[in-house]
Amino acid sequence: MDQNELKALVGQEAVKYIQDGMIVGLGTGSTVRYMVDALGKRVQEEGLKIVGVTTSNRTTAQAEGLGITIKDLNDVDHIDLCIDGADEIDTDFNGIKGGGGALLWEKIVNNASTKRMWIVDESKMVPRIGNFGVPVEVIPFGAQHVFNYFEKQGYHPEWRMTDGEKYRTDEHNLIIDLKVGEIADPKALAEDLIHTVGVVEHGLFLNRVDTVIVGRQNGPEVLQVK
Amino acid sequence: MDQNELKALVGQEAVKYIQDGMIVGLGTGSTVRYMVDALGKRVQEEGLKIVGVTTSNRTTAQAEGLGITIKDLNDVDHIDLCIDGADEIDTDFNGIKGGGGALLWEKIVNNASTKRMWIVDESKMVPRIGNFGVPVEVIPFGAQHVFNYFEKQGYHPEWRMTDGEKYRTDEHNLIIDLKVGEIADPKALAEDLIHTVGVVEHGLFLNRVDTVIVGRQNGPEVLQVK
Repeated sequence: MDQNELKALVGQEAVKYIQDGMIVGLGTGSTVRYMVDALGKRVQEEGLKIVGVTTSNRTTAQAEGLGITIKDLNDVDHIDLCIDGADEIDTDFNGIKGGGGALLWEKIVNNASTKRMWIVDESKMVPRIGNFGVPVEVIPFGAQHVFNYFEKQGYHPEWRMTDGEKYRTDEHNLIIDLKVGEIADPKALAEDLIHTVGVVEHGLFLNRVDTVIVGRQNGPEVLQVK
Repeated sequence: MDQNELKALVGQEAVKYIQDGMIVGLGTGSTVRYMVDALGKRVQEEGLKIVGVTTSNRTTAQAEGLGITIKDLNDVDHIDLCIDGADEIDTDFNGIKGGGGALLWEKIVNNASTKRMWIVDESKMVPRIGNFGVPVEVIPFGAQHVFNYFEKQGYHPEWRMTDGEKYRTDEHNLIIDLKVGEIADPKALAEDLIHTVGVVEHGLFLNRVDTVIVGRQNGPEVLQVK
């Protein structure tokens, strides 16, 4: 099977966990795109009644186009199940997210969810996270000083760029990608990042997932974290 | 002396610490306003050469009107001395800032400064900080969940309002004021706040000042913290 077929199978497996009446967090990314397609099909064919809360304007547009009811996170009191992608997952189920630039909304939705599921192709499963880089969302005001601090710390920061300009998130912030390589102590790095004045949020997702579905060559593999 | 005369004297005392060639952080607030006036006078009358970095658009407008050169924080590599106000200062020199809604930029400038000075009238000096409330800047997306969490924690959150609408900061974020009363353990509260997903920054300034100038009835009192 090619990569896209694997992602489609993972998306179809994930939506089996969605039940009538649920409030569902809908992530962002290429595998999630297949999951939202499969969810739209269940809504249309089975009359499944769910409410979606999205992590990006892109996913909102896709879901609404498929007839899925979308509500603002501020208008629901909880999310039953959040289904999102990940850029790397290690053997302790620590993750890195934010390659798509939506890490802040993704972490906020993750945080508001009772159960969290990540859906990925098998290339995302790694012994140790870090080679992907750690995206950090920073306030534009004084951001150069945050960049300099990361450099001094040996985090090898790089500005996320798009069309020759610094990339702007949905909240109009900047992204600095830390090219740290494999991370020996993700918790220590997360603590340093969150205490850095000017940092809004970072892409280390530690202890934030309950189920992982991995697209293997012989079909989706379901991993229960706890 | 009335309150305004005291504030003016404090402002005049503070600018004595500014030397030729310095890069100076200029805070926000009513006492700072007098300090910036006094600084403008030194620039005009003595030909003092300094560069200012401001913490709000308001202060930029005032300073530029007085002929003070202002640079963006991203265009200087450090700040020699930052002079700002505070809403409360305790006997350990822990502070609360953010009554004016500029706490994020104030903390970023404070953080980039080699020396930090707070200038206040004596009503701001308290045995324990907290009665003022702790302003917290939060991302609008999902902010109701942050508010609900603060309520559950017993922090007595209130939305900062202006003209019947939720107040927006210079970064278009929201402010939640925590009406916590006197805080037994400011560090523990700061840790909880900074780890709350959706929180950008909070108004607890712990271990962030070197000199405090207090407007007393018999004149400005200079306190060296360390």
